[in-house]
Amino acid sequence: MKKFLTVIASLLLAATASAADPLPSWNDSASRRAIVAFVEKVTTEGSPSFVPAPERIASFDNDGTLWAEQPMYFQGLFLMDRVKALAPQHPEWKTKVPFASLLKGDLKAVAAGGEKGLLALVAATHTGMTSEEFDQTVSDWITTAKHPTTGKPFTAMVYQPMLELLSYLRGNGFKTFIVSGGGVDFMRPWVEKVYGIPPEQVIGSSLGLKYELRDGKPVLLKTAQLVLNDDKDGKPVGIQRHIGRRPLMAFGNSDGDFQMLEWTSAGPGPRFAAFVHHDDSKREYAYDRDSKIGRLARGLDEAGARGWTVISMKSDWQQVFPAAK
Amino acid sequence: MKKFLTVIASLLLAATASAADPLPSWNDSASRRAIVAFVEKVTTEGSPSFVPAPERIASFDNDGTLWAEQPMYFQGLFLMDRVKALAPQHPEWKTKVPFASLLKGDLKAVAAGGEKGLLALVAATHTGMTSEEFDQTVSDWITTAKHPTTGKPFTAMVYQPMLELLSYLRGNGFKTFIVSGGGVDFMRPWVEKVYGIPPEQVIGSSLGLKYELRDGKPVLLKTAQLVLNDDKDGKPVGIQRHIGRRPLMAFGNSDGDFQMLEWTSAGPGPRFAAFVHHDDSKREYAYDRDSKIGRLARGLDEAGARGWTVISMKSDWQQVFPAAK
Repeated sequence: MKKFLTVIASLLLAATASAADPLPSWNDSASRRAIVAFVEKVTTEGSPSFVPAPERIASFDNDGTLWAEQPMYFQGLFLMDRVKALAPQHPEWKTKVPFASLLKGDLKAVAAGGEKGLLALVAATHTGMTSEEFDQTVSDWITTAKHPTTGKPFTAMVYQPMLELLSYLRGNGFKTFIVSGGGVDFMRPWVEKVYGIPPEQVIGSSLGLKYELRDGKPVLLKTAQLVLNDDKDGKPVGIQRHIGRRPLMAFGNSDGDFQMLEWTSAGPGPRFAAFVHHDDSKREYAYDRDSKIGRLARGLDEAGARGWTVISMKSDWQQVFPAAK
Repeated sequence: MKKFLTVIASLLLAATASAADPLPSWNDSASRRAIVAFVEKVTTEGSPSFVPAPERIASFDNDGTLWAEQPMYFQGLFLMDRVKALAPQHPEWKTKVPFASLLKGDLKAVAAGGEKGLLALVAATHTGMTSEEFDQTVSDWITTAKHPTTGKPFTAMVYQPMLELLSYLRGNGFKTFIVSGGGVDFMRPWVEKVYGIPPEQVIGSSLGLKYELRDGKPVLLKTAQLVLNDDKDGKPVGIQRHIGRRPLMAFGNSDGDFQMLEWTSAGPGPRFAAFVHHDDSKREYAYDRDSKIGRLARGLDEAGARGWTVISMKSDWQQVFPAAK
């Protein structure tokens, strides 16, 4: 009985809490109103647009949609830190391309090395260890590393309005998924704590895994095989592989998310698709068509005709980052 | 307020229902007691073995664990039905191996054709269409096809005690996953209705997908690329790819599940692993060491020493299949 009373008490508390604004960092903008109207429409029982809870899937890109991605993808900064940390064990890197360029801080030379050079860097930093060892490395890094210009921990560079949106959707029976071009193993160690998204709801670019026994104990060894390039066309593929159900809502910020929004919108019944537009040079960054990172051109050109929402960070968001704790 | 009262009323109902036995088709056996003791241990707050709800992952093999698999994997019967249904569009199959053998009902010749022949059959029946077309084909088949010896629909050949177990675990905060050697696209269209497991919690052997536009409308075309062979070593790999978290409990029935149970048991803290043993020739089938389908030899040899439970269908289950509706 005591447990039952506790349940009722927590229900009462929940009812009180839900009376408060679930999206306090959003201005009363057209974007906000479009999101709320959509959610109310699909969650109102008896409405012709009602969607049962198990089908309420919302997918979110990560870099540039849930957290910042400038001056480069944060996983790139992780990779650079790993090369530096591992360099003492690899004296040959001092003279070996692309490691030597990276260690000298010559990122232009690294970029000039193209895909082959990048793959060598990824292989050296993201493979050859067990999944648990890599998990630990990411966990250690994410709790100690600082953003190069703001000096903040990376987990403080998540977008407060998007945290509220994730929570608002879950409160309305949605399952929230990440569908990111970033590495799945780079996200899973921290996204549950930061976004409230459990590891099984994270889809990302993936390398291979090999089951092995080490002294009789099973491990999963990370290998360099590319299992999923979760970008562009790869996003609907990743969604189908992992979820097996088309999202009801999709949020991205770059042309790399175009196909995810296209696939989402093409489903029957009501669908919602939106880009977060980085147009706030004061509080965050302003970039779109000409950016090397998070380029958004086709998306901006076609959003209107396709009925997709463009969320302006500058005018739709009252606050960008969470208040410092 | 009215909604709130409804919530309380349904809570009261739930409290009443939970007083009933959650596992009525299980005899009061050692297996049942081991399952219940484990679940109580990991769900009791304050217990040293307590596991928070998000980490309560339970993984289930499908063929032979949740539903029957004799006289052959049901997906094999689906494949045969598809070849017959597609034959009129492929007159060349009348003389082409392995299609000709299959159409003549000569399964020995099909089997003699080995992996190459089987792959040709899979390619002809499981690829070349969109994911939605395949979905529809499976849905149509599963609602109309009948088991060759019992004459029952295949969804009536699921194990009642396992349905109760799935539901009991979910009632205790577990997320239930299927981890099957069978095709993920073959399971997802019906498992939500039959097992209460949503498509995003189904892991299985997977072929490729290709994103394409057809008359401006996006589709995902099924291709013959093998993305995951979700059997033996592939099961822990599939679990890590999709869940990113080690299960707390794992249930299988054959040596193809050995590595899933091994990986599960090797985790820190309390873990539970069990084989369903097909030892009931009267109500189901009796097979293990010498069976071509669902062979269980190493599992039986090592279960005791590894602390794994062996569930006897004959003595632990009061009922095998659900009562006819």
